[in-house]
Amino acid sequence: MAHEAEAPSDIPFGPEDAPWQKSFSSLRLVRGMPRVSPPTTDPRTAYLSVPEVPFAKVQLPPSGLDPRQYAEAEALFRRHIDTQTRDFAGYQVTSDLNYRERLGHYLDRHLNNVGDPYQSSSYTLNSKVLERAVLDYFASLWNAKWPHDENDPESYWGYLLTMGSSEGNLYGLWNARDYLSGKRLRKHSTGTRALSYERPLRGEGQSPHAYEPVAFFSADTHYSLTKAVRALDIDTFHYVGTTRYPAENPLGPGTPWPTEVPSTEDGAIDVDKLAVLVRFFAAKGYPVLVSLNYGSTFKGAYDDVEAVARTVRGICAEYGLDRRPVYRHRGNDGGGDGDHDERSGYWLHIDGALGAGYTPYLEMARDAGLVKEAPPVFDFRLEDVHSLTMSGHKWFGTPWACGVFMTRTGLQMTPPKSAEYIGAADTTFAGSRNGFSALLMWDHLARHSYDDQARLAVECHELAGYVHERLLDLQDELGRDLWVARSPLSLAVRFRRPHPDIVRRYSLACETARVDGTSRPYVHLYAMRHLTRQRVDDLLRDLRGPDAFAR
Amino acid sequence: MAHEAEAPSDIPFGPEDAPWQKSFSSLRLVRGMPRVSPPTTDPRTAYLSVPEVPFAKVQLPPSGLDPRQYAEAEALFRRHIDTQTRDFAGYQVTSDLNYRERLGHYLDRHLNNVGDPYQSSSYTLNSKVLERAVLDYFASLWNAKWPHDENDPESYWGYLLTMGSSEGNLYGLWNARDYLSGKRLRKHSTGTRALSYERPLRGEGQSPHAYEPVAFFSADTHYSLTKAVRALDIDTFHYVGTTRYPAENPLGPGTPWPTEVPSTEDGAIDVDKLAVLVRFFAAKGYPVLVSLNYGSTFKGAYDDVEAVARTVRGICAEYGLDRRPVYRHRGNDGGGDGDHDERSGYWLHIDGALGAGYTPYLEMARDAGLVKEAPPVFDFRLEDVHSLTMSGHKWFGTPWACGVFMTRTGLQMTPPKSAEYIGAADTTFAGSRNGFSALLMWDHLARHSYDDQARLAVECHELAGYVHERLLDLQDELGRDLWVARSPLSLAVRFRRPHPDIVRRYSLACETARVDGTSRPYVHLYAMRHLTRQRVDDLLRDLRGPDAFAR
Repeated sequence: MAHEAEAPSDIPFGPEDAPWQKSFSSLRLVRGMPRVSPPTTDPRTAYLSVPEVPFAKVQLPPSGLDPRQYAEAEALFRRHIDTQTRDFAGYQVTSDLNYRERLGHYLDRHLNNVGDPYQSSSYTLNSKVLERAVLDYFASLWNAKWPHDENDPESYWGYLLTMGSSEGNLYGLWNARDYLSGKRLRKHSTGTRALSYERPLRGEGQSPHAYEPVAFFSADTHYSLTKAVRALDIDTFHYVGTTRYPAENPLGPGTPWPTEVPSTEDGAIDVDKLAVLVRFFAAKGYPVLVSLNYGSTFKGAYDDVEAVARTVRGICAEYGLDRRPVYRHRGNDGGGDGDHDERSGYWLHIDGALGAGYTPYLEMARDAGLVKEAPPVFDFRLEDVHSLTMSGHKWFGTPWACGVFMTRTGLQMTPPKSAEYIGAADTTFAGSRNGFSALLMWDHLARHSYDDQARLAVECHELAGYVHERLLDLQDELGRDLWVARSPLSLAVRFRRPHPDIVRRYSLACETARVDGTSRPYVHLYAMRHLTRQRVDDLLRDLRGPDAFAR
Repeated sequence: MAHEAEAPSDIPFGPEDAPWQKSFSSLRLVRGMPRVSPPTTDPRTAYLSVPEVPFAKVQLPPSGLDPRQYAEAEALFRRHIDTQTRDFAGYQVTSDLNYRERLGHYLDRHLNNVGDPYQSSSYTLNSKVLERAVLDYFASLWNAKWPHDENDPESYWGYLLTMGSSEGNLYGLWNARDYLSGKRLRKHSTGTRALSYERPLRGEGQSPHAYEPVAFFSADTHYSLTKAVRALDIDTFHYVGTTRYPAENPLGPGTPWPTEVPSTEDGAIDVDKLAVLVRFFAAKGYPVLVSLNYGSTFKGAYDDVEAVARTVRGICAEYGLDRRPVYRHRGNDGGGDGDHDERSGYWLHIDGALGAGYTPYLEMARDAGLVKEAPPVFDFRLEDVHSLTMSGHKWFGTPWACGVFMTRTGLQMTPPKSAEYIGAADTTFAGSRNGFSALLMWDHLARHSYDDQARLAVECHELAGYVHERLLDLQDELGRDLWVARSPLSLAVRFRRPHPDIVRRYSLACETARVDGTSRPYVHLYAMRHLTRQRVDDLLRDLRGPDAFAR
């Protein structure tokens, strides 16, 4: 048994620290070395370590783990997650969950909502019937016209997301890009031709930029938006401005174009500055794509959707971008109704990851006199809202990310290809969609009435107020500016970043902001339903510790 | 109780058929009508019905469902899914699952692997430590260099998918698009500049198309690929050919360009025809993006990855597209090492949704003498494989879609934006990633050795042979051509589409193919581990019924 220490396959591996190549020895069938690659260095030192879950214990040797090894590894992981869940306070995610007893059965079933939610599928192991019930629920909550009707352009269409709101943003912006660049609408599709590559025709007198959408979003926007515009190859106002109009930044002629639309200190988009930027591009004939936050990730701020909608529509109307015809054929090719459609030259997408779940209930609580205020309207009551997305794991709470995407039926684009294989149109972003997520959302909504939700909204709102007050008290007590702040009606309270051990214990999200020319390292806390006053008080106790805030 | 039939809010709703507006009456807090929209028509008739789960029983009124109503609705859904699972035979998805007992606990926890798998996160409720163990397992199985090392371009990098292989295809093609169009590699990123919009410089003598990738994939490719190239705005050879070189289709001058690369009757890409098409575009300086199937969705065919790699590399080498410099600055800006990199002018992406999970074990079985053959090599033993994706719910089996994406570290592009908020680079497609999926994959691999997997591969391979034989027998017995066929080493057996009741009972996937100028409606069966000889015999019995095959 003389192993060369330098032979890579002697690297200790798995819970028994056996040399990697020895992990084959317990196998009866595959003797010696199968055609797989050995490690070249020790993965245990290559990767960062999680102290509570040593990598050795969870490594997967070719022989697998025996029941004792499995039990030990899983127990370590479970204890770590249970501990972190107990103290979790920092993200707009709900960690207080209760699905196991009712829905554990479905861990032994495969549910896949492949394709359009309103079409059947020969893939019968799906939960689309529950998905439709959930979508109707949100269509009603968000004041859309329901039920969905493929022949009614004003009725809603939507689907449940597999990735959370980052998928909803991707899908909404993709739809917006194709809509604004003149691609074919679903209602005008014949269903038989390959339409993927069709281009619109430029009408007489139309701007050379008539089908080149420009995207606008604020500096407080979630980082996934930057990824979405890059993946979708959508030009932002920053890119078009910098490359084509470098000296003409209308917010400061001669100064560099800002990367994003400026926001207020509270984190909401600056509507006046947005208006200046939108006017610059609308005047040149570019269609306008605005993505708004409701609320923003770090500060929990609500963009004033109604003011933005009014402003953008008004400016676009001045330049003929409110309604415009998109032609498919030359005039002499027919001229019938089918050769063009009329559509807006702007699109408003709302990233309502947390807010679109929470604030409808806060509005009900306000109407019932339980709270004084609710944030501005964001939903389909505004005729200019084109698409909307919300996360299921944020306000409602699910074991993994999920969510809802919703738009109006008349705004849908032609799906890329008929997908006979699954027996349903391929109208969604994912191919396979997580059918368990529909079950989770359905379960939660079935067990919580509007009353329950409105009461919970009030509790969380008041808890955020409590956190804010106590942190202000602490600031006074310590005689030091902890930068404590809460944006209006936000469930987030932000303050100076404490010691890394505290950040980790409570899973506090970090962000650096520039304020008055200096960098400020912030963290925030979110008053979600798992957060108790007891947990807040524990955190405050830790924040009083001598090393809590570095000098 | 005189309800006006025409008043929309009187539409019967929920399990008790109460008028929709009456569903608020049980609520104490929100009296009367909250600001939500009522249905405009009856959703029960608007949507298709699932006979086993009447929509009325699962509709979600504002009052929620009481425990009795909930229990009834969930029981109906459960019985339906359990029945369909019992007879499931038609897709490359494994429905025989066994996770509940061990992992039910995590339905009450939120696990979110946000950001890069190799970086820690202040979002501590993640299973990245298990994800890294799973990724190492597949890096070894697919003969990549492991562990991942950000400073070693030859080492693998990967992450676990949230949507399944359609996400892996999207991510792989996005990476390919940016790589071939000269965007900045991750290793050359400074991490501080906004790099999203950088463009490469054209070198002297470079083609005007040097940064305009053209995509090639076969007619047997999954429909999600068409969606991916459209979302990512990647030009296919069909589009570029049709718009720029309409009369020059090299497969038949003067005839229309084919939409996809032709495949053989077995469903594998026609390597000779691919070569002709690739040469046409490589000669004009276009970089080449080839996406291959391993195996294809309907026929389960394995593209000959090695032959394609050899062919594409050879052709590209003739036109200087094998290695080429990509410049970032003009020569007089410095000229140091950092101002250009050298990379290939082609990219091979492998969609190994089922095959990349199954065939490594079939290869082990062949090496152990248990079967005679295994499909051609597809993995990182081939130096020209740039990216690879596999689904977790197919060969391995999970309650929802999941999977693995893998590439080489040196091929990674700069992430769009630093994501301080989550404490990890935003290198993946989703923002939030499903952390439970990593746990499921880890659990499965921990409990199944290479031996177990190789034996199971043999069983499924032999079962597919059994299905094939019995269907051929049936064809003889009925004296009728049922178009029974099995592509080499495929787990799918295809045949003439039977009566819709049989299609639904066994969840058989449908596809229409044109053979000898006529349309043939096919279905297929997949020999996954849930399929038993008993279930096959039940199906054969039903296929012998008098109405099984329409005349």
